[in-house]
Amino acid sequence: MAAGLSAAQLTERHRATLDKALEAIRTRAYWSPHPEYPKAYGDGSGLGPAEGKAAFDALLGTRFELDQPGTDTWAGGEVSPYGIDLGIQYPHPDIDVLLPAMRAAIPAWREAGAEQRALACMEILARINARTHEFAHAVMHTSGQAFTMAFQAGGPHAQDRGLEAVAYAYAEQTRVPDSAQWIKPQGKRDPLRLRTTFTAVPRGVALLIGCNTFPTWNGFSGLFASLATGNPVLVKPHPRAVLPLALTVRIAREVLAEAGFDPNLVCLAAELPGEGIAKTLAVRPEIRIIDYTGSSAFGEWLEANAQQAQVFTEKAGVNTVVVDSTDDYRGMLSNLAFALSLYSGQMCTTPQNLLIPRDGITTDAGHKSYDEVVADLAAAIQGLLGEDARANALLGALVNPGVRERLENASSLGSVALASRQVTHPEFPDAIVRTPALVTLDGGKPEAEAAFLSECFGPVSFAVAVDSTEQAIALLRRTLREKGAMTVGAYTTSPDVERAAEEVCQEEFAQLSLNLTDGVYINQTAAFADFHGTGGNPAANSTLCDGAFVASRFRMVEVRRPA
Amino acid sequence: MAAGLSAAQLTERHRATLDKALEAIRTRAYWSPHPEYPKAYGDGSGLGPAEGKAAFDALLGTRFELDQPGTDTWAGGEVSPYGIDLGIQYPHPDIDVLLPAMRAAIPAWREAGAEQRALACMEILARINARTHEFAHAVMHTSGQAFTMAFQAGGPHAQDRGLEAVAYAYAEQTRVPDSAQWIKPQGKRDPLRLRTTFTAVPRGVALLIGCNTFPTWNGFSGLFASLATGNPVLVKPHPRAVLPLALTVRIAREVLAEAGFDPNLVCLAAELPGEGIAKTLAVRPEIRIIDYTGSSAFGEWLEANAQQAQVFTEKAGVNTVVVDSTDDYRGMLSNLAFALSLYSGQMCTTPQNLLIPRDGITTDAGHKSYDEVVADLAAAIQGLLGEDARANALLGALVNPGVRERLENASSLGSVALASRQVTHPEFPDAIVRTPALVTLDGGKPEAEAAFLSECFGPVSFAVAVDSTEQAIALLRRTLREKGAMTVGAYTTSPDVERAAEEVCQEEFAQLSLNLTDGVYINQTAAFADFHGTGGNPAANSTLCDGAFVASRFRMVEVRRPA
Repeated sequence: MAAGLSAAQLTERHRATLDKALEAIRTRAYWSPHPEYPKAYGDGSGLGPAEGKAAFDALLGTRFELDQPGTDTWAGGEVSPYGIDLGIQYPHPDIDVLLPAMRAAIPAWREAGAEQRALACMEILARINARTHEFAHAVMHTSGQAFTMAFQAGGPHAQDRGLEAVAYAYAEQTRVPDSAQWIKPQGKRDPLRLRTTFTAVPRGVALLIGCNTFPTWNGFSGLFASLATGNPVLVKPHPRAVLPLALTVRIAREVLAEAGFDPNLVCLAAELPGEGIAKTLAVRPEIRIIDYTGSSAFGEWLEANAQQAQVFTEKAGVNTVVVDSTDDYRGMLSNLAFALSLYSGQMCTTPQNLLIPRDGITTDAGHKSYDEVVADLAAAIQGLLGEDARANALLGALVNPGVRERLENASSLGSVALASRQVTHPEFPDAIVRTPALVTLDGGKPEAEAAFLSECFGPVSFAVAVDSTEQAIALLRRTLREKGAMTVGAYTTSPDVERAAEEVCQEEFAQLSLNLTDGVYINQTAAFADFHGTGGNPAANSTLCDGAFVASRFRMVEVRRPA
Repeated sequence: MAAGLSAAQLTERHRATLDKALEAIRTRAYWSPHPEYPKAYGDGSGLGPAEGKAAFDALLGTRFELDQPGTDTWAGGEVSPYGIDLGIQYPHPDIDVLLPAMRAAIPAWREAGAEQRALACMEILARINARTHEFAHAVMHTSGQAFTMAFQAGGPHAQDRGLEAVAYAYAEQTRVPDSAQWIKPQGKRDPLRLRTTFTAVPRGVALLIGCNTFPTWNGFSGLFASLATGNPVLVKPHPRAVLPLALTVRIAREVLAEAGFDPNLVCLAAELPGEGIAKTLAVRPEIRIIDYTGSSAFGEWLEANAQQAQVFTEKAGVNTVVVDSTDDYRGMLSNLAFALSLYSGQMCTTPQNLLIPRDGITTDAGHKSYDEVVADLAAAIQGLLGEDARANALLGALVNPGVRERLENASSLGSVALASRQVTHPEFPDAIVRTPALVTLDGGKPEAEAAFLSECFGPVSFAVAVDSTEQAIALLRRTLREKGAMTVGAYTTSPDVERAAEEVCQEEFAQLSLNLTDGVYINQTAAFADFHGTGGNPAANSTLCDGAFVASRFRMVEVRRPA
C-alpha cells in the first residue's frame, strides 16, 4: 500500500479539473482531460505501449486477487474474440457475506461529503487513465474491438463518461449548502431562527451490470454516478468481459484504501457459468440502484421486478437514418460507410435501417435512384474496407457466436446488396473478422417488417425502400415509438424535411444527427457535450448523463434546530 | 377574455421574482413573495376579505364552467366539514376526447421554452395569490381546516410550493444551453465542428391526483413541476375537495389562453360517485407522469402498475418524536401540544408516536417520570385548547367520518391519558370539532405494536413507554424502515442522543427536527428552505422539492449538425 492520500492532496490534484468538468457540462463545448492518442502515454505519463502490453500479458493465466470479503470460489473463462484464452480466475462472492461488508462501508463514505467523494473518484479515474494501454488490451480481448477503438472508446472516452458522471453527481449534491440559517420575520416579535444541515445520503448498495461490447464505456457512468453519490458499487461484469471491470475494481479499491476509506465500497461479482447472478442480486433488498446495459428482455425484467431499486437501463433499439437528399453525396456515402463498418456494427449506436425513397434522391451529383444509392453505398463500404490492414483496424472481431449467426442469417431476410466477407487478421488468425452486409428490403411489405423492426445487432444493415420521405418520417416515428433508438440520422437539403425529422425526434425522444459528412459519425457521442440516448424511448430509460441520472441516487436529509 | 399577455409583459412581471426563487432554493434562507397575513390582501392588492368571501359564496350551488373539451356529464357533491352543502357541479370528462385534446396542446408549449413556461406558471400563481381569500374559504370548506390555516397553508404556503417547483423546473431545463458549438481539435487538420441544439421535451400528459386535506398545498408542487417542464396536466381532485383545484384549473386556463397557449394544457377530471377514475387514468398510455398524495394502498398500486409513467407519491407514515431530555420542559410541552392540535392532527406531518422512557426524563424542571410527562403534556393540550374560540381557530373540523371513527376507536387501543372533547363551533354548529386524544401504550408489549406501528390519521397520538432512549432510537429505526415517516422529532440535551437520532434519520431517510420549543413546529415545512419528506422511506417516494422531482418530467433532445 502506498502512503496515505490526504484530502489536501486530492484537492491539489483534481479540484481544478472538477471545475473544468462542471463548466463543460454547462457549456457543452468540446473538452476532455484524457488524451486519446496512444503516444500521449508513457515516458513518465502513465504506462507506455510496451508497458501496457506487458501488464496485460502478466495477467493472463493468473488468479485476479482482490482481497474482498466473502470469496467462496473462483470463476473465469474469458476467451478473446481474437482467439486467446485469457485463463484468468476472478473471486466469486458469497453475497450474504459481501453485501453486509459493503453496507458497512457506507457511513464513513457518506460523512466524507460530496467533494471528497468526487476527488477520490477522480483519483481512481486518473489511475485508470494512466493505465489506458493496459485497459486497451483488456477491452480489445474481451469485446473484440480493434486496438485503436479499444484504446480510445475503452480508455479516454470511457474515462470522460466517468468524469462526466462525477461532475453531475457533485453538482447535484451541492445544489443546497451543507448548512443554512433560516430567519423568518415575525413583525414586532423576535424572528424565528433555525439552523439547518443538509446531508446527501446514499440509497444503499448499487449494482452495475456490465456488457460485453463496451465494458468500461457503458459501465463507468453508472459506477461513478453511484460511487460519487455515496453508494458502494458491486460490479457484475458480463462473463465474457470481466477483465476491464476487474481492473477498474482493483484500482478503485487501492485508491479508496489509500484515501482512508473502506475498499469494500467497490467490489466485484464474477459469476459461474450459467449462474445468472445478476437476477439474484437485482432483487436483493440491499441493492437500491441498478445500472444495466444489455438485452431488452432482461432490461425490462429489471424495470418490472427490481422495485426496491432505482433502475437505469440501456436496452436494444433500432437506429434509423432517413436518406432524403444531400448536397454532398460522396461525403454522405463515406460517412455512412464508416458508421456501418466501425466495430463491425456492434455498437448500440450503429445505424441499422437506412430509409431510402424508392424513386431515388436528389444529390449534388444529380438524381440517384434507390438502386444507385444502395450500390454506391456498397461500393463505399468496399472501398473503405478493401485493404485488409485497414479493414482489421476498423472492424475488430465479432464479439460472440450470436453475432456471427445473425450475420449468416441476414441473406435470408432480403436481397443482399453487399455480402459480408471474412477478413484475415495477420496477428490473430482465429479472429472472426467480417465486413458489414447490406440487405435491401421493401418497406411496404409486411413480411419485411419483421426484419427491419427488430434489432439485428452486428454488421447487418437494411436499405429499406420507402414510397417517399414522408413515409420514411412516418416509419421513423413508428420505429422510435415501438422499438426505440439510441441514434437517428437524416440527410436532407430540405428545411421542411429537416424540421419534420426534428419534430419526430422531439416527440418520440431520440437524439438526431443531421447531414454528417465529415469526421463526426452518428455512432459517436462525446461526454460533456452529447447525451447518449434520451431515456424517453424504449431503447433506454435513462441518458448519459443528465440530472435525472444522478438525482435519485441519493436523498437529502435535513436536520433543523433552533438557532 | 382579457387582452393578450405578451412574453415581454410576463418577463417584466415575473423574471426578477424567478431569479429570487432560484437564489432561495440555493441558499435555503427564508423567502416568500406571498404574504401570509390576511390583511395584506385587498385595497388594490387582490381580493380583500369580504370580496374573497363573496366570490366563494357566489360559487355555491352553481355549475363550475370550464369550457374544456369532452364534457359528457356533470359531477359534484362536496359537503363542507363545517356542514354546508357546496352544491357545485363540475365537468366530468370523456377521457377519450379530453386526453387527445391535451396532447394536441403540447407542441406550442414545448416550443415556448423553459423561461416562457416558467413565467406563465408564475402569472397563474400570481392570480391565485390575488384570490387567496377566495381560496381560503374553498380550502376551509373542503378540508375542514380552520380559516387561518386554510388561508396560510392553502394560500401563500401552497403558492410557495408551486413557485419552488417552477424554479426547480426552470433550473433543471436550463442546465444546458439552447445551443452549443462543439469544436474538437484534430492536430494539423481542421477541427471538427458541430452546432448542437438542445430542447427540453415533455414526457406527455401529467396526472395530478389530489388529496382531501391539503388540495392546494399537496397539489401545487406536482402541477407546476409538470406544467413548467412542458407537460399538460390533468387535475383529478379528491371528490371531497374539488373546488380549490377547480379554481386553480380555471385560473390556469385563463392565463394560458391570454398568453396565447392552448388552455387545454390544464384540465379538470371530476368524477362520479364510486367511479374510481384515477385508476382508469393512471394506466392510460397518454399519462406519462403521476403525482399522488393519499393512502399507501393506492400509492403502492400506482408505483407497481402505472409503469408507463413517472410516479411521484406521498403516502402514509408513522411520524415519531423521541423524548429523551430537555432544557426547556415548558417549551417542549407547549410546542408538542400545538403540533398535536393543529388541524386536529390531520396533517401528514403531525407526530403520532411520542417515545418516552418509562423511567422518565431529565429536564430543566427536574426529573419527570413517564406519567408526569404524559400528564403535563395532556395538561398543556388542555390549556392550549381550553377556550373554544382558540380551540376552533386551531383545530378546524374533522375532514371525514373515517377520522371520527378512528378517534372514537382510540380508547380501545390503550389507556386514555387525555380524552378528546367535542368543541362547539359558534358559526357552524354542524361541524365536528374535536380536541386530540392522547393514549398511552407500552412499547414492550407486542399487542401494542399493532396500534403504534400503523398510521392512525387524525387527532390521536400515542405516548409509547420505552425501556430507554436507546430502545426509542431502535424503535424509531424500525418504524422508519417498515412504515416510513414524513417527520421525525427529538428532544435531548445529550450530544450522543442527538448524534444517534441524526444517524438513524440519515440511514433511514427521514427529516429530523431537534428540540423545537419556540414558534416553529415539527409539522410545518417552508418551501425554498425545507424539503417535505425525503423520498427514501416508505412514506413517500419523492420529496418536495428537489432535482429528482423535476428532472425526469422531461427529456433533453439534441440535434447536431456540421457547423
